[in-house]
Amino acid sequence: MATLRRQYTVARPVYSEDSFGEDHEKVSRQRKTLLDHVKEYLTCDSKRAKNAVLSLLPIIGWMRIYRIKEWLPGDVVSGISTGMVAIMQGLAFALLASLPPSYGLFTAFFPVLTYFFLGTSRHLSVGAFPVLSLMVGAVVTRLVPPDGPAANITAFEGLTPDQQKVMVASSVTFLMGIFQLAMGVLQVGFIVVYLSDTLVSGFTTAAAVHILVSQLKFVLGLDVPGLNGPLAIISTLEKVFVQITSTNICDLVMSIVIMVVVFIVKELNEMYKAKLPVPIPIEAITTVIACGVSYGFNFNERYGVDIVGKMVSGYEPPSAPSMEVFQQSAVEAFPIAIVGFAVGFSVAKVYAIKHDYTIDGNQELIAFGVSNIFGASFKSFAASTALSRTAVQESSGGKTQIAGIISAMMAMIVTVALGFLLEPLPRSVLGALVIINLKGMLMQFREIPYFWRKDKPECVVWVVTCVASILLGLDLGLAVGLGVELLTVVFRTQFPRCSVLANIPGTDLYRDRKDYLNIHEPAGVKIFRIPSPIFFANIEFFKDKLVEAVGFNPLRVLRKRNKALRKIKKLLQTKNPDITEKGLEDVLSQMGDEGYMNTEELDLPTDVKDLPFRIDWNAKFPANISVPRVDLHSLILDFSAVSFLDISALKGLKTALKEFIRVDVDVYIVSCDVYILEKLHSCMFFDDELLTSMFFPTLHDAMLHVLEKHEDNGKDRVVRTTIHIYHSL
Amino acid sequence: MATLRRQYTVARPVYSEDSFGEDHEKVSRQRKTLLDHVKEYLTCDSKRAKNAVLSLLPIIGWMRIYRIKEWLPGDVVSGISTGMVAIMQGLAFALLASLPPSYGLFTAFFPVLTYFFLGTSRHLSVGAFPVLSLMVGAVVTRLVPPDGPAANITAFEGLTPDQQKVMVASSVTFLMGIFQLAMGVLQVGFIVVYLSDTLVSGFTTAAAVHILVSQLKFVLGLDVPGLNGPLAIISTLEKVFVQITSTNICDLVMSIVIMVVVFIVKELNEMYKAKLPVPIPIEAITTVIACGVSYGFNFNERYGVDIVGKMVSGYEPPSAPSMEVFQQSAVEAFPIAIVGFAVGFSVAKVYAIKHDYTIDGNQELIAFGVSNIFGASFKSFAASTALSRTAVQESSGGKTQIAGIISAMMAMIVTVALGFLLEPLPRSVLGALVIINLKGMLMQFREIPYFWRKDKPECVVWVVTCVASILLGLDLGLAVGLGVELLTVVFRTQFPRCSVLANIPGTDLYRDRKDYLNIHEPAGVKIFRIPSPIFFANIEFFKDKLVEAVGFNPLRVLRKRNKALRKIKKLLQTKNPDITEKGLEDVLSQMGDEGYMNTEELDLPTDVKDLPFRIDWNAKFPANISVPRVDLHSLILDFSAVSFLDISALKGLKTALKEFIRVDVDVYIVSCDVYILEKLHSCMFFDDELLTSMFFPTLHDAMLHVLEKHEDNGKDRVVRTTIHIYHSL
Repeated sequence: MATLRRQYTVARPVYSEDSFGEDHEKVSRQRKTLLDHVKEYLTCDSKRAKNAVLSLLPIIGWMRIYRIKEWLPGDVVSGISTGMVAIMQGLAFALLASLPPSYGLFTAFFPVLTYFFLGTSRHLSVGAFPVLSLMVGAVVTRLVPPDGPAANITAFEGLTPDQQKVMVASSVTFLMGIFQLAMGVLQVGFIVVYLSDTLVSGFTTAAAVHILVSQLKFVLGLDVPGLNGPLAIISTLEKVFVQITSTNICDLVMSIVIMVVVFIVKELNEMYKAKLPVPIPIEAITTVIACGVSYGFNFNERYGVDIVGKMVSGYEPPSAPSMEVFQQSAVEAFPIAIVGFAVGFSVAKVYAIKHDYTIDGNQELIAFGVSNIFGASFKSFAASTALSRTAVQESSGGKTQIAGIISAMMAMIVTVALGFLLEPLPRSVLGALVIINLKGMLMQFREIPYFWRKDKPECVVWVVTCVASILLGLDLGLAVGLGVELLTVVFRTQFPRCSVLANIPGTDLYRDRKDYLNIHEPAGVKIFRIPSPIFFANIEFFKDKLVEAVGFNPLRVLRKRNKALRKIKKLLQTKNPDITEKGLEDVLSQMGDEGYMNTEELDLPTDVKDLPFRIDWNAKFPANISVPRVDLHSLILDFSAVSFLDISALKGLKTALKEFIRVDVDVYIVSCDVYILEKLHSCMFFDDELLTSMFFPTLHDAMLHVLEKHEDNGKDRVVRTTIHIYHSL
Repeated sequence: MATLRRQYTVARPVYSEDSFGEDHEKVSRQRKTLLDHVKEYLTCDSKRAKNAVLSLLPIIGWMRIYRIKEWLPGDVVSGISTGMVAIMQGLAFALLASLPPSYGLFTAFFPVLTYFFLGTSRHLSVGAFPVLSLMVGAVVTRLVPPDGPAANITAFEGLTPDQQKVMVASSVTFLMGIFQLAMGVLQVGFIVVYLSDTLVSGFTTAAAVHILVSQLKFVLGLDVPGLNGPLAIISTLEKVFVQITSTNICDLVMSIVIMVVVFIVKELNEMYKAKLPVPIPIEAITTVIACGVSYGFNFNERYGVDIVGKMVSGYEPPSAPSMEVFQQSAVEAFPIAIVGFAVGFSVAKVYAIKHDYTIDGNQELIAFGVSNIFGASFKSFAASTALSRTAVQESSGGKTQIAGIISAMMAMIVTVALGFLLEPLPRSVLGALVIINLKGMLMQFREIPYFWRKDKPECVVWVVTCVASILLGLDLGLAVGLGVELLTVVFRTQFPRCSVLANIPGTDLYRDRKDYLNIHEPAGVKIFRIPSPIFFANIEFFKDKLVEAVGFNPLRVLRKRNKALRKIKKLLQTKNPDITEKGLEDVLSQMGDEGYMNTEELDLPTDVKDLPFRIDWNAKFPANISVPRVDLHSLILDFSAVSFLDISALKGLKTALKEFIRVDVDVYIVSCDVYILEKLHSCMFFDDELLTSMFFPTLHDAMLHVLEKHEDNGKDRVVRTTIHIYHSL
């Protein structure tokens, strides 16, 4: 079989890194310093200036290639479909933010206008996002509690509670916009990579649970105050169940009917996706019917159903945000800014890949930031995107943000002219529509067993993020989840599975010696593989494993040797050639404690230069000089998976390797990354004990070097072992 | 030169991981499951039971080997020296904790008693630690502010402010003990590895700054209320400078004199370390003199000097901690518990290595936990160790905790009988002694330039931890520092320096092709090295770099090919052999948009099975079918440094590799860790496109395989290129 295969034949000199460097000249590459990068970044020429303008106004890019004949019909159809969804979601998500529903329509209008000019995504439907609305709502209910005095904010004076709420929401949104804009200007859009899919999945599931709980009161027609903070969800549930007997049957029945109908139609939409030109706008249909029925039968007065009520007609003049609210909500606005951007960016990325254009994270941050600042000035609340709405915009044929502008126009028409039509709409209908849209998010619970089977740490991240976000609230939960996620990265490298390698006979390959029956480990050589980066969290672990693998503690051996050496020197000083073994022991026992006192000295290299003979530490010593036998002459460390070293690791490694070198074990490091080697040089790793000649390009090079060196030494030892210390004395 | 060196000669078959597995049988090793580990952990036999008892009561271990004649004298001398330091430090550190000084003596007594039985370190001097005292003090001043009403805690009723303070301090200490005990029982002592040397250095430097600022009021004899919380340090400094004109000159002069004298004597102690049997106890001497002078000249009344004042004489009965304080200080008690343990453990480790015995992190947690719970019951506050005191205990000849017990006895004697002697001691003297002992901690500022030169990320960790701890307070600062530290680990692997490797001619070695002049890169093969683990934070980066390295986007190529294929099929269906180029373009332009609509289909593998001929995608196509040329036939990924993969990376990798495979690029992965290979199997990485045959043990194996395969293909291509698509149509 083997003869049929191509042969692997290599004949070359054995290389150490040093000799390799001599034979193969390296190109000296000038690396850019930090200063060069800064200079380059600040350089300005006309091309860069033009690119900067283009990247700041992406609209110029796609407007120039806009194909009116082909794209405009799609954009118009898509804009109208999206507009209907945006109006429904705007009303419903305003309830999540504890605001009067009409402000949701503002959020479907203002932010879209600026995103149109600044956004790099052509398919994103900008507007309210349920999780964000809920996070804004948490701040609103904290500062303007429904059953207590509002926070002590001077700007609240003379305002109705609803106006206070709107002021809080728009101020938080303004601050969120400032954070996003600042991050965009500072070019730190990359931070969203820390929100891994697992984390986002756990977080949005928790958000879905929060949304579900917050909508229960509308669906059941109960009057439950909005709570927030750690464990608020439990209190809310408690309050709901205490009141469960006063459920409004009309609300409940209507909600259930709507949920069932919408659920079925949505499933049908999904099943006949390929055949339907646009999905059936069941939510809009339901809303229109519910409005009509509620108005016709006067649900509000006859059954006490809570309705949307008086809509603000038209827009309000812009207003400045409240600095006091900024101060009181800064800690909450930051996670809102992060979540808003992360959701928008990840949805945008999906469609950018699908339609093969590029989006720019930092420009998106700027776009969302400006949109939120602009929107907040006109009293709209936190905008990002909703996956479902963007899906409608894309699937109904939207090609560019023209579709977004058309959907914004629809929201405007409702605000300005048709708002009164929505006034009889029961709030329970909005609640039911929100709940039915949670299906996808709640289904993510099914991922838990998948994660558990595949990767335990990620399962932990998911569960911790989800549970923390449910119990502690979304902002604190996100922070906890992020912390755990970063910990898992450290954890994965913290307890690496170190292994001892040996040679597969007849090859240059080395594998874990426990894995193969036919494997050769030359006597006196140990190959230790470190399968991870080395840093503060695992350097101690790695040192322990190394001691375990070689079977002795080099420091302990060194101290014993140094103690023995001191005794021998003392004996030599007495110059008594007739010393008996008994006498020797007497002398030694008198010196017993001295060795204990000066421990620092014991850790120095053995100083044998004054001795008239060479000591073979593995020879037999008198009974009271106990020096452990060390059968190892070479230790080879496989560094191929060491992708970085930090300073703690560097120090720890230096100490560990010196201990081995001081007990006459040659240490070799193989397959070390060039950048790590450079770092070792720059950090003064090398001295008169640790030499650059310890580095070899491959395991086999090091092994051949060791075997050659100890071919002679082996013979030498046979000679040396006959010279016993007894004889020397 | 090369001929002098030993030759590296290998002749063996070319192996893929599959063929290697056939030739070399693997031992099937039974890996322990989580259940096995749990079972093993819960197994109990007499030996394990005995070990458990021994490890729970380490005193049994060292008492059995105690050499009374040799060790006792050292322990006694050491105990007396340490005792004097412990008394001084106890008084001074009680001021840091905003408590009456006599409670510092309790802390030098009670915790030592339990640590004696439970602690594994033989050299640790248990007692107050300045940073911990300050952290406890922060809670005390928050709940019992000096210039305002105390917190609303029922247990406070009927207590004087000092008693309230003591209650808060002992309750926090009790809770800290519970946290430590719980961590010890749960065996999570390993978490201290996250407090890297860099982090601890930055943190303790910040603590030193806090301590310095908090002592200013004593040294200057001012009345400044203790503040805490973010930015408290700035307000405190402001308050001090506002009052600077009312400095008590007597306090200031005395403090300066003491600081100068103590500083000089400490330097002398250090210089003549080798010659002095025990260091000069300058602090004790100063204290005695200051007491005498203060009493003799009646400093208190004559100069308005603030003195220690009435000492509590004797001990108080044990009392239960307050649950209300627990609730209000849980967030602060946790970092106190962590810091207390981390300091104690790291100091203990230094001496354990020096004197060659082992300490057990989890047992230390239990020991500290029980000691703090026990101490708190008797109104002592947070105990850990102070480096300086432990250094005295060890250097003056202490061998075991007998020395600790003797120092505790000295503290007891002062408490019970001699306390009144310390009453006239000015507080400014204690403040001066605390400040002079900060020298070592503040000197750590000098590490900044060192870190900056060696390792920028660690410098950032140091500076952020220090600045955050100074400005935000120690507990919040520690959390921020920890977060940044974890981020640096992620950051180091987040932007790996990917490189394209090439062959060093005449060898089996591959290096960065940019680094060497004489280097060979076979045509059509790209070797891409991933120098770090792959996970959620860098998978996108890695994919971008890969696309950059190969020079084309495989997905875009695939889509173009699929579009072209669809056009070709359509053309073939029309079966018009006389189609002109003009007519072709007409047909194609009519189909223009169809390709845009069904993007999902475009991402599938090219389906060429219906075609009557084979398409060479690199051949020349008609002008309106634009398919990018792909010169690459093989992509080799060097996985030697990939120490782990998470699920995001797995999914991303799968997508990326499939894209390449679908444009007919063979993908090979070399030097993949066995555990990662196992994980890929268990996570269903392989399917009909991704095959296990893509894995090779070394780069050279894969390269030889590729060269062999494309030796034939190269010829084939020459033949195939003559068959143009024009001809087929």
